[in-house]
Amino acid sequence: MDTQVVIIGGGPSGLLLSQLLNREGIATVILERSGRAHVLSRIRAGILEWGSVEMLREAGVGARMDREGFVHDGTYLTDEDQMVHIDFHALTGKRVMVYGQTEVTQDLYRAQDAMGTTIVHGVEDVRILDLDGAQASVEYVLNGERKRLSCAYVAGCDGFHGVSRKTIPEDRRREFERVYPFGWLGILSHTPPVSDELIYANSPRGFALASMRNANLVRCYVQVPLSDKVEDWSDARFWEEFSRRLPAQAAERLVTGPSIEKSIAPLRSFVSEPLRWGRLFLVGDAAHIVPPTGAKGLNLAVSDVFYLHQALSAALKTGDETGIDGYSARALNRIWKAMRFSWQMTTMLHRFDGEDSFAAQMRRASLRHLAESETARRDLAENYVGLPY
Amino acid sequence: MDTQVVIIGGGPSGLLLSQLLNREGIATVILERSGRAHVLSRIRAGILEWGSVEMLREAGVGARMDREGFVHDGTYLTDEDQMVHIDFHALTGKRVMVYGQTEVTQDLYRAQDAMGTTIVHGVEDVRILDLDGAQASVEYVLNGERKRLSCAYVAGCDGFHGVSRKTIPEDRRREFERVYPFGWLGILSHTPPVSDELIYANSPRGFALASMRNANLVRCYVQVPLSDKVEDWSDARFWEEFSRRLPAQAAERLVTGPSIEKSIAPLRSFVSEPLRWGRLFLVGDAAHIVPPTGAKGLNLAVSDVFYLHQALSAALKTGDETGIDGYSARALNRIWKAMRFSWQMTTMLHRFDGEDSFAAQMRRASLRHLAESETARRDLAENYVGLPY
Repeated sequence: MDTQVVIIGGGPSGLLLSQLLNREGIATVILERSGRAHVLSRIRAGILEWGSVEMLREAGVGARMDREGFVHDGTYLTDEDQMVHIDFHALTGKRVMVYGQTEVTQDLYRAQDAMGTTIVHGVEDVRILDLDGAQASVEYVLNGERKRLSCAYVAGCDGFHGVSRKTIPEDRRREFERVYPFGWLGILSHTPPVSDELIYANSPRGFALASMRNANLVRCYVQVPLSDKVEDWSDARFWEEFSRRLPAQAAERLVTGPSIEKSIAPLRSFVSEPLRWGRLFLVGDAAHIVPPTGAKGLNLAVSDVFYLHQALSAALKTGDETGIDGYSARALNRIWKAMRFSWQMTTMLHRFDGEDSFAAQMRRASLRHLAESETARRDLAENYVGLPY
Repeated sequence: MDTQVVIIGGGPSGLLLSQLLNREGIATVILERSGRAHVLSRIRAGILEWGSVEMLREAGVGARMDREGFVHDGTYLTDEDQMVHIDFHALTGKRVMVYGQTEVTQDLYRAQDAMGTTIVHGVEDVRILDLDGAQASVEYVLNGERKRLSCAYVAGCDGFHGVSRKTIPEDRRREFERVYPFGWLGILSHTPPVSDELIYANSPRGFALASMRNANLVRCYVQVPLSDKVEDWSDARFWEEFSRRLPAQAAERLVTGPSIEKSIAPLRSFVSEPLRWGRLFLVGDAAHIVPPTGAKGLNLAVSDVFYLHQALSAALKTGDETGIDGYSARALNRIWKAMRFSWQMTTMLHRFDGEDSFAAQMRRASLRHLAESETARRDLAENYVGLPY
């Protein structure tokens, strides 16, 4: 065999899986369609569950995160009248870490480079083959030349649009999907955050999220119709709309500045079952997408990696296949919980076009329920900081 | 003045309010459109929160309830794979009482008769007048003759279709409504219950509820399309459908028998604000309707009565009007919490025609969340047994 595990996709989940496997002496090759600069230019999630923090430390890539990341003890949920604090640490004993996905990816590249792992960028026309044979193979084109790698297992970490999921025959997949009728317009700006902690703001004008990366870098979002284009939103229009959706005591602290990135992302819930197909295992966005409300996307990819690296390691080092046999069910169990939480957060905080007046009242009542019930806050906090692996 | 408080509506909320006021020496007259036999023929709610139990005891009408009612420590929520027990008592220290609304009403009539309260049945064309004057008056027609009562206050306990709410000018009311696209077909039958506790059953075929009144009287429901008619449902068809929606271990204990009552009720969430208009105060269904999932209808009427009897008593006995000034806001605060809970239970347990495959997965995930999270079960239990007054 050319290597033990071929990993399709050089984003954070593929890199982390490779890193963990390499540390156990298992050889990997990573195939990535894009260049490294492009991978590192994607602005994505910024909140790590504590389980993810511990996984990154275990993988030997936690040093800069521990130095530069911001530990958050809680978050705010607001509407025009209420500002509800969810004190994660008091409610669950756990915290979360603010550290951008871009930084995680960068740390993983450095660690993988130090490890000497082969990361092939610019691969095209990837084909995953022989999944029911004695060994799998992966074909791809690099610089116009067709290549082939044989391996024991293939990990599909190539995201929603990747080839891995589609390698499983359509009639053997069960797919579940909810497309929400709105998107998030997000900007990145070198300005100080309005709050020490994130603010998830429900308002009659729609949802907004005040998030941050560090003391002088914010990531802010407003809910927009899917028909809106980035060009429709000047920085001035963005900040005005964002400000109107925040509670007054936060809006008055808002410092605005030019955006250094601006994009619109649709919101989707999606799960494809199963996660295993012979020698192929799907990880993260390749199999499931959550709407970002609840910050579960990257964290779910990390828990998939946790289950899969244990399973592959056992299979490759001791021949014990119970882990790989159980991977799909085990990972899906946690995935569906995060799907539920992300869907609940999304429906609780967004305005839906054409909704009746009762819908807005239910959002207000849900927020008041959180304000008045420690049990309700604990339920939210337990899910936000991350359920056990 | 002819009396101190005229109460429009001789259902359980009007009777209970009258009973509590009478016990404090306040004179009331109750006006009811129907005959007593008709009021007592209505099959309604069967679950009393512990706060309602204590209110009925305080009103001096708890003796038969304590003798004949059934104390339930918990309930079941199920789907085709899961049977989740919510142990109210372990989670909250509280219980609920199974005792039909019909029995409560009967006990209240007996107590009011013993008290010598005037309950006028068969009134027509009720008009509530002079609500901003020094005293209010209520006109009505009895046996073809127009009558008039003057009073200090009017309590509107005449239900969703009553005249009380409509007495408040339309442009001074804010109404919030959700009409669910299904109804509950319910039957009453002299058969033993399938379970010691209620079963709220979610299934791919829709919702069912196995409820009971006593050891040989059950109240069972299935979710049906709004287009269905009672005539479409023979007893045999009802029991077959009901059985298919229960989990197997409950269905196998099902004993069927002829129905002694069968009806279809639509599901609705409705709130009209404010609850006070001058000398008029709305109570219970006159101002708000919950879908029955969660058993909040009668219990909310009882908490309205609790707030209002305190307020009226203070105003009439000491001239202190802070209670009547605060009644609407105080009652609405608790009403909106129960609206939220009833809406959450309804959406969590019912199949919606035309829904996507993700919706059914979210119901399954919500049930699994309850199964695995004590915090989630506690949140449900706290709301089911009743939030504090």
